[in-house]
Amino acid sequence: MTSLTLQEIKKLDKVSRLNLINSCTGYKSANLIGTKTINGSNNLAIFSSVTHLGSDPALLGFIVRPNVVPRNTYKNIKAQHYFSVNHITDQMIAKAHQTSANYDENISEFEAVNLTPWYDGFHNVPFVAESPVKILCKYVNEYPIKENNTIHVIASIEKIICYPELVQKDYWLRLDLAKIITINGLDGYALPQLIDRFSYAKPDISLKSLL
Amino acid sequence: MTSLTLQEIKKLDKVSRLNLINSCTGYKSANLIGTKTINGSNNLAIFSSVTHLGSDPALLGFIVRPNVVPRNTYKNIKAQHYFSVNHITDQMIAKAHQTSANYDENISEFEAVNLTPWYDGFHNVPFVAESPVKILCKYVNEYPIKENNTIHVIASIEKIICYPELVQKDYWLRLDLAKIITINGLDGYALPQLIDRFSYAKPDISLKSLL
Repeated sequence: MTSLTLQEIKKLDKVSRLNLINSCTGYKSANLIGTKTINGSNNLAIFSSVTHLGSDPALLGFIVRPNVVPRNTYKNIKAQHYFSVNHITDQMIAKAHQTSANYDENISEFEAVNLTPWYDGFHNVPFVAESPVKILCKYVNEYPIKENNTIHVIASIEKIICYPELVQKDYWLRLDLAKIITINGLDGYALPQLIDRFSYAKPDISLKSLL
Repeated sequence: MTSLTLQEIKKLDKVSRLNLINSCTGYKSANLIGTKTINGSNNLAIFSSVTHLGSDPALLGFIVRPNVVPRNTYKNIKAQHYFSVNHITDQMIAKAHQTSANYDENISEFEAVNLTPWYDGFHNVPFVAESPVKILCKYVNEYPIKENNTIHVIASIEKIICYPELVQKDYWLRLDLAKIITINGLDGYALPQLIDRFSYAKPDISLKSLL
């Protein structure tokens, strides 16, 4: 085994340290967050920190860095409250990654990377038409993380729109059926394939496969 | 597309709602957190909310639910400060899932599920010998999330121990080389395979593959 202490990690150049720390926690969710600017333009940015927080109420959270790209997402969410979270498939990885470029605020990343805005007919929020899972979210609260000047944004899940074939009979969304991807580090895109699904674990009782 | 509104989601039975909301945000990290009790027993529990927070300082965060299993992890971290975060491979998924069973506090999940405790020689913290990536962490702070009575625990990354073949020349850890898995929902385990890795995105410049 290779061992890297904090002292050794601190001595790495910035890009190496970013690569190491961003990849060491494991695979990450891959989501495009869609927002409207106050001028009515569309904004789209890739995030890898969206995490389920709880089911009742249905909440998710993600981390924003107010001083770096994609700063527009946070500003738009604070102004408009509603936003969309859209999944990324294997066919979309280059377009999704390109949304992380530092575009001017008046340029729509949808147009710049050639993804299609889609609306649910009720909210002035751009979703990604090509995404097999789209979530309508509403800003609820935020917690500043003082240790590194980031912000943990908390949002409620207001609507889930997805391909019907993903919804299994117990409402589990089987993500590999739509070739949804996951992120390894800052810039690696990987396609998962389901291995197994297990029953609720109890002491001294063998697990059963739910597949 | 299928559409589920918040009103429809609220009407689902508890298990269906858990399945839907836990799977709708995308793939999740899969980690075993290892701790010592104040009595010196080992504790091991699976988490799917460990998220990279920042690289300088190197921080991660995860969500604990103080009123439900695995509550022991949080208690041990508060008492001992140091803990381990260990990755899960395709060969370990049943053992890792079984750690979520509600074992008595004096029972070591390492023994119960047949995983091997490993020590770095400097800290009284059990790592998982079988894990290809092991991280030594130290409690830094916590932020109570009042919206659902969870706690966002912030920890510093103190040491990274991993298989040398995972460390690429720019310190990116290529996770698929060790068959590290990701979680779909509460109980689905999936094995990702790398598709591509892209250069830093800039407006009007084509992405290059870093592989």
